[in-house]
Amino acid sequence: MTTHESQYRILYRDIDSMGYLYYSRYLDLFEMGRVEWMREEGFRYRDMEADLRLALPVTHAKCQYHSPLRFDDHAQIHTDVIAWSGTTLCFAYQIFSQERQELCATGEVELGCVDLDQGRPQRLPKALMDTLTTLLPQRNGRRKQEG
Amino acid sequence: MTTHESQYRILYRDIDSMGYLYYSRYLDLFEMGRVEWMREEGFRYRDMEADLRLALPVTHAKCQYHSPLRFDDHAQIHTDVIAWSGTTLCFAYQIFSQERQELCATGEVELGCVDLDQGRPQRLPKALMDTLTTLLPQRNGRRKQEG
Amino acid sequence: MTTHESQYRILYRDIDSMGYLYYSRYLDLFEMGRVEWMREEGFRYRDMEADLRLALPVTHAKCQYHSPLRFDDHAQIHTDVIAWSGTTLCFAYQIFSQERQELCATGEVELGCVDLDQGRPQRLPKALMDTLTTLLPQRNGRRKQEG
Amino acid sequence: MTTHESQYRILYRDIDSMGYLYYSRYLDLFEMGRVEWMREEGFRYRDMEADLRLALPVTHAKCQYHSPLRFDDHAQIHTDVIAWSGTTLCFAYQIFSQERQELCATGEVELGCVDLDQGRPQRLPKALMDTLTTLLPQRNGRRKQEG
Repeated sequence: MTTHESQYRILYRDIDSMGYLYYSRYLDLFEMGRVEWMREEGFRYRDMEADLRLALPVTHAKCQYHSPLRFDDHAQIHTDVIAWSGTTLCFAYQIFSQERQELCATGEVELGCVDLDQGRPQRLPKALMDTLTTLLPQRNGRRKQEG
Repeated sequence: MTTHESQYRILYRDIDSMGYLYYSRYLDLFEMGRVEWMREEGFRYRDMEADLRLALPVTHAKCQYHSPLRFDDHAQIHTDVIAWSGTTLCFAYQIFSQERQELCATGEVELGCVDLDQGRPQRLPKALMDTLTTLLPQRNGRRKQEG
Repeated sequence: MTTHESQYRILYRDIDSMGYLYYSRYLDLFEMGRVEWMREEGFRYRDMEADLRLALPVTHAKCQYHSPLRFDDHAQIHTDVIAWSGTTLCFAYQIFSQERQELCATGEVELGCVDLDQGRPQRLPKALMDTLTTLLPQRNGRRKQEG
Repeated sequence: MTTHESQYRILYRDIDSMGYLYYSRYLDLFEMGRVEWMREEGFRYRDMEADLRLALPVTHAKCQYHSPLRFDDHAQIHTDVIAWSGTTLCFAYQIFSQERQELCATGEVELGCVDLDQGRPQRLPKALMDTLTTLLPQRNGRRKQEG
């Protein structure tokens, strides 16, 4: 079981004039989910940048919107790794409203790895690879992305 | 030719600590693109909300990231409608950096239509349907979305 | 004792290319602080909008920046009401980094009250006035604002 | 005459459920204003970071809100330097709605200067000092800030 759960209460700054969480903000919640996922698996994104000078920029993102989140709703973000390779990492997300226990959005985000100084593609950091190899050996393999 | 072009200069607030445009902000640029597209085709999003009490919430969004946009870059957003039906409208985007004439991102966003008072699905406003029928008869048909 | 405390972990989307929390985002944390303050005092901002058709737009805001918050820092937001009148409410904030126990920013935000339908000035909702009268009778009086 | 003018059309992502530009976003417009001010005076913020490894973090910000900006409004941002010293730079702003020719907000932002590597206070870059000395000798002197 490698799904992690994060919480976020929707702020006024996050919603639009329909009163809904603005559509790009779901990707912000996805970020929160994957940083928490990594932290709980013993890998701190911040240290990777500081110590290894590596970053994990997004290469593909998608989101399907099922039901709106509103101001003051408690969002539950369920995050899991669904595929990984030596150079890519793919997260899947489900976002629920806690009060209504309703699925509000689903999504996927694929990350690559670059060095911060040159911006050149690199292999994922060893500590992260070790975690993935131990935790999710069966999900090794890059997820096919469109385009 | 129904591709419209918008401009946006990347602000400091938009970038992350890699110095790149943060990944969810591309979806904000997509919004800019479609509002401009509609305005140039004679349809004002704002008036639709005020006069018809209708809104066009996003149902699906995806983005592929090719090359980063950075602080102070001029982004060119190319926007086109690639499919539409009585209840859906699908935009495709290409974002270029003006200085480097480089393709930075591509994406698609599908919108539905709801009334603002109940949030119930509605048909697209007639004025918008008329524009689409005249302008893009050959793209009538809903684009298959995953999930 | 009417100071309330909220928590927020700084996301990648919140920081700039210096690696610091972007300066306008402190005002977003202030919002989080005052919504929590009201909730803990028994007053739900969301219900006020839905039931009374009233909102509390900001009339003045200021922030002094002492020490930067960074990605993945835990921000502690201390919120208190420092003045109120029949038509205004003024919050003061202190934001600390939890890890370093350092004062990062201080600020003040004054709110007015308007009806959502016309945007006309109104008196604060009675439930909120009752709370303020009971809790903070000695802070009754509008805080002088510049300009 | 050292007031510069920038334009920004308010996006859906920028507004809140009152339909108003969210209060912290005015500070984003202030940023746009000062980057443009510097560019027009021959000083590129981006180059300063890249070439000199210096940045200009905000030390004080304030904003007074007179009348709301709404979705699709054209904001005019008037930016001027009102004070400067060897280590500080203070901008004043007026934001108007172009359609209504109405003053919507006024504000001030004071910047300091730090090196990007250590985050230590530094003197303003010489090129910027030269510009200020030539352009605004009479405004030399730090503006008194509260707190």
